[in-house]
Amino acid sequence: MRLIVVGFGNVGRSLLSVMMEQARDLDERFGVEPKIVAVLDSKGGAVDSKGLNMRELLETDTKEGTVAATPKVGQFGLTPLSVIGDVEADIVLELTPTNPVNGEPGISHIEKAIRNGKHVVTTNKGPPALAMRRLQRMASQNKVLFRFSGTVGGGTPILEFTKKTSEADEVQSLRAILNGTTNYILTQMHDANISMDEALSQAQRLGYAEKDYSLDVNGIDPALKLTIIANYALEREISFKDIRITGIADIRLEDVQNHKRERRKIKLICSIDDELSVAPVPVEAAQPICVDGSLNSVQLRTKYIGETTLVGPGAGGLQTATAILSDLLYIHQTRSQGNEA
Amino acid sequence: MRLIVVGFGNVGRSLLSVMMEQARDLDERFGVEPKIVAVLDSKGGAVDSKGLNMRELLETDTKEGTVAATPKVGQFGLTPLSVIGDVEADIVLELTPTNPVNGEPGISHIEKAIRNGKHVVTTNKGPPALAMRRLQRMASQNKVLFRFSGTVGGGTPILEFTKKTSEADEVQSLRAILNGTTNYILTQMHDANISMDEALSQAQRLGYAEKDYSLDVNGIDPALKLTIIANYALEREISFKDIRITGIADIRLEDVQNHKRERRKIKLICSIDDELSVAPVPVEAAQPICVDGSLNSVQLRTKYIGETTLVGPGAGGLQTATAILSDLLYIHQTRSQGNEA
Repeated sequence: MRLIVVGFGNVGRSLLSVMMEQARDLDERFGVEPKIVAVLDSKGGAVDSKGLNMRELLETDTKEGTVAATPKVGQFGLTPLSVIGDVEADIVLELTPTNPVNGEPGISHIEKAIRNGKHVVTTNKGPPALAMRRLQRMASQNKVLFRFSGTVGGGTPILEFTKKTSEADEVQSLRAILNGTTNYILTQMHDANISMDEALSQAQRLGYAEKDYSLDVNGIDPALKLTIIANYALEREISFKDIRITGIADIRLEDVQNHKRERRKIKLICSIDDELSVAPVPVEAAQPICVDGSLNSVQLRTKYIGETTLVGPGAGGLQTATAILSDLLYIHQTRSQGNEA
Repeated sequence: MRLIVVGFGNVGRSLLSVMMEQARDLDERFGVEPKIVAVLDSKGGAVDSKGLNMRELLETDTKEGTVAATPKVGQFGLTPLSVIGDVEADIVLELTPTNPVNGEPGISHIEKAIRNGKHVVTTNKGPPALAMRRLQRMASQNKVLFRFSGTVGGGTPILEFTKKTSEADEVQSLRAILNGTTNYILTQMHDANISMDEALSQAQRLGYAEKDYSLDVNGIDPALKLTIIANYALEREISFKDIRITGIADIRLEDVQNHKRERRKIKLICSIDDELSVAPVPVEAAQPICVDGSLNSVQLRTKYIGETTLVGPGAGGLQTATAILSDLLYIHQTRSQGNEA
């Protein structure tokens, strides 16, 4: 299984660590031997059709700040589009950051990969949130698979859980907490009785919030995830702009503490029923969906089963790396069943 | 998709209702048209290679107490083994009650089906708990599939959730509440401060406990489920008798109430780490796994993701029917990918 890795941040580095640790297991249990034939970051890349040394890539990246500095195989100025087009590989892993405005350059990377007959696995929310149907159609025409488990819930399998439930049952409504940063902030306002600003700096110190936390606080990040769930797992035809989005910026400590006295917690709830929305809502503290800290949760109400809830960490490099592995195994298993031909 | 239904109790009847309601959806979304070519209960059966009328089967069963009384196509004295062997079909649904001693007659039904080249879906815990590896090998040799999603968690996809997580990550330990009846009893002792006997009669009045509740109260039912999870989803080689089982019979109201003061609840916890056990254990009330009433839950602790928890109803006819549908869709999708050939 020859892989091209585009984008080498926290998730990419975590993936290489997990692959090295699990190499024997992947081979023995599934017959999968992942080989990285190219890896790219913003400064350039490294290419080796015989497979790059993962440990060396990680060391070079740590020391030099770019994989382009890898001895012998590294090259400054290499670009994703040329590598995706020219280097022989089975799967492209698109791991660049989310651009919520137009999904670029992720969408172009993915289109190039698909047109070149390469499967795609991405953790970038932009392309599946803004162009899912188009990319799915293109993938299907080119007989390749397009997977994005890591875009929602980190390693917690929110997409597959929702999709499988919706296949055998009718999902009538969904409620979810899909953003760890805002959930951490709201939890601290509730538990520690501190202001949003204090909670936010705490989240940054602990690494839960990025420097640019605006996509979290204004609700864009969870709305992108909700769009992916609605289109992929519930087969709805939803555009990102159909979602009514309210962030948490206007939530006051006083509101949080007033609800606390009534055993409710204000949570940034993503919901799907007749409408789609992301908004801060008071939730009964005893509800299974009402999880704290940086946890994510999703609750489905269905016609036959009733209510089911899945809870787990919503982000993290290692967690997201397992979601990528899960997609790689899916592609491996589907290919060996001859589905792609 | 031609089906033989063996055993026609609550689950079988619910399945027919769901199939009638979802017929159009199954056809349009998946191209699946389930056709029941034979159905059997303890008194006989009904057979029609063109497909039995589901509504008529349900009406006859309600009025006459057996599908054998169905006009024209019904026949008293028909036996499962002869029908499984003689009637042409794609899949046998083995829905007879669980026999925890030797898995019969379920195991014989399933062996007969597999030898005759028929896929098997079962909700009977005996065969997968007591003979999983043998039946899996036999299925694989005969190029058919053997599925049993409905044996654990009703419609809550505990088996698939655990299996998928364990494929892409390392599950280090598992804790679960897998029996709704005992969970209802323990919840009532906690919440309503009533004795086990009172809670049990309440559970029976509400239909949560069968007349013979001994398999629940003595921990056999959840231990069978734990065996299935360990072997199927975690690929361990575990025999039912490897599990240390303690039921809830010795739990006193006083103990429950003492723990309540410390915000703990006594729960019948199934656990897998170095050892496998089923035993009543005090659990922090705030833990996501600590669910009430007849709910089930499973919590996985893994190497990379951390802790994930799935919660949902653990039983019920309609719920279990969706698990059967899910298995039927799996067989349909796998067959159309040519895996069985």
